[in-house]
Amino acid sequence: MNEREIISLFSHSAGVDKTGLVKGIGDDCAALQIDRDRLWLVTMDTLVESIHFNTDWHPPDKLGRKSLAVNVSDIAAMGGSPLYVFLSLGLPQNFNPGWLEKFSRGLAEACLEYDCCLAGGDTVRSSEGIVITLTVIGEVAADQILYRNSARPGDEVWVSGTLGNAAAGLELCREGRKGGDNMSFFIESHLNPRPRLKLARRLAASGFVHAMMDLSDGLATDLAHLCEQSGVGAVIYSDLLPVKESLASTAKEMGKDFLQWVLSGGEDYELVFTAPDKHASDIATLAEKVGFLTKIGHIDEGGGVRLVKGPPGKQNIPQVDISFMGYDHFKS
Amino acid sequence: MNEREIISLFSHSAGVDKTGLVKGIGDDCAALQIDRDRLWLVTMDTLVESIHFNTDWHPPDKLGRKSLAVNVSDIAAMGGSPLYVFLSLGLPQNFNPGWLEKFSRGLAEACLEYDCCLAGGDTVRSSEGIVITLTVIGEVAADQILYRNSARPGDEVWVSGTLGNAAAGLELCREGRKGGDNMSFFIESHLNPRPRLKLARRLAASGFVHAMMDLSDGLATDLAHLCEQSGVGAVIYSDLLPVKESLASTAKEMGKDFLQWVLSGGEDYELVFTAPDKHASDIATLAEKVGFLTKIGHIDEGGGVRLVKGPPGKQNIPQVDISFMGYDHFKS
Repeated sequence: MNEREIISLFSHSAGVDKTGLVKGIGDDCAALQIDRDRLWLVTMDTLVESIHFNTDWHPPDKLGRKSLAVNVSDIAAMGGSPLYVFLSLGLPQNFNPGWLEKFSRGLAEACLEYDCCLAGGDTVRSSEGIVITLTVIGEVAADQILYRNSARPGDEVWVSGTLGNAAAGLELCREGRKGGDNMSFFIESHLNPRPRLKLARRLAASGFVHAMMDLSDGLATDLAHLCEQSGVGAVIYSDLLPVKESLASTAKEMGKDFLQWVLSGGEDYELVFTAPDKHASDIATLAEKVGFLTKIGHIDEGGGVRLVKGPPGKQNIPQVDISFMGYDHFKS
Repeated sequence: MNEREIISLFSHSAGVDKTGLVKGIGDDCAALQIDRDRLWLVTMDTLVESIHFNTDWHPPDKLGRKSLAVNVSDIAAMGGSPLYVFLSLGLPQNFNPGWLEKFSRGLAEACLEYDCCLAGGDTVRSSEGIVITLTVIGEVAADQILYRNSARPGDEVWVSGTLGNAAAGLELCREGRKGGDNMSFFIESHLNPRPRLKLARRLAASGFVHAMMDLSDGLATDLAHLCEQSGVGAVIYSDLLPVKESLASTAKEMGKDFLQWVLSGGEDYELVFTAPDKHASDIATLAEKVGFLTKIGHIDEGGGVRLVKGPPGKQNIPQVDISFMGYDHFKS
């Protein structure tokens, strides 16, 4: 049973229909109607010690920040802003109070930065290791919300930032390497990701975007979700994928495949979105103002996510289906 | 660092003030203003394998039901009704898909029973054992919400149902005993608690009640929270505590102290509330209609929760402070 099968199991046993539930299981957040003009977004993410983080190298304050950041990224991906944060914390019997103080300070800092507040939660003993679950409630204007299921054939596919940095950072942490500026950048991407909250808000307000989501499990899996839910396919070009210059050399030095990091690494918390090609120049203008945006391919009527290993416009390069080749918690 | 100290740590690092946050950390739920007439309630509870449940004796469907029930109890305790449910599930690498299907069926059944729906969540791998976190959003009329902090000197203290049953049930499960009807009742109280949703709604709508909360950590701790937050104290009488007839004999047979179960056992998911004595007969009338309610003592200006081991009205029985002697996840 893989992650998608588990989600499907629960999707089919969801209880009564509620009229206010505009979007349930299957997007970055659930969307709940508050009044005619407003929706609330609800997301929930769990980080487990030894699975999602390692206290040997993850400073507690950065983990506090990251716990919120990954949830804020989900709220951003639907065009919203976070309001209220709820924390359920599982701690082993002999947890370190100093660790907890630093963790809470990092979380509080991030609450200030993203303009939201800790409003409740639960504290329990875990059987082993630290387990951090956050629920974040956000808000979005009803006419600005962006879903995964609205990509259309002819749309172009865009991503923010550069990809594969967090995967590189994780690998560097695992190998206990620190070194120069480049490595520090990758490591920081893993330890302390920055969700694209402002950019996402601008994109949602622009009216240019058809479908959007955040990149948490890797482009190969996340874009496949977007395509599946929109009933479309995507073609992306390896030569267009935005990659930091030193990523390839770092990967080579470590005996790793950098394209694997870019496509399947996960935890980049960048945005992937689709927009009709008539808005390409509008988006380019917006990109200049608020950050780095790259067109990586287009949506068509075929199925899945197909990678062309090369540039667009060249004949005879085969398309390779990479759908759902990103991170899966339960893949054997 | 005990549970209260941990909660206090996070209470002091809660981020920005949000005008819509009517009640933050410290009650059964957070309360968020939706419009002039409505509040939303948010609660979050985590159940950890080997700490809160044992799969050897807890059938997965009943655990699915209980996971929701303990959260619905928090919503009920503030006078509300549940609307939306979010589940974050941590599963070990080699979890049993059959177990998961039964768990999801139990959760779905409970969603139907409590008229709410599963709207989202997260699925992750745990490092060990199953970890279940639910967030439940409920709704309450702004003029009916009940807090913990509104008990007043002169109020009488009431509880619903009978106490100590779940603690007895847990002990019976631990010892692998099943036996007759009485034991089954206690075991069922532990495995499949029924929150007092309807009763709580009636109490909230009655206008008689000053303060209310649910009993999850035992009367000694929960009533102490209510007193602390209200700036009052409580005197309760052991002879008034509502106890199922067979509890004492079951405890005796097992070499346990039944009063310990009643005061500190936890997980009864009954209601404790305070109301001015002028409403005693109104509440008695209400009790006849909807369920069992018992007056167990009164609120005064003293501190803490003081137990009188005997009936009310008798002279020279010392008061014993039992504040916070219930369940604490981190008590050494």
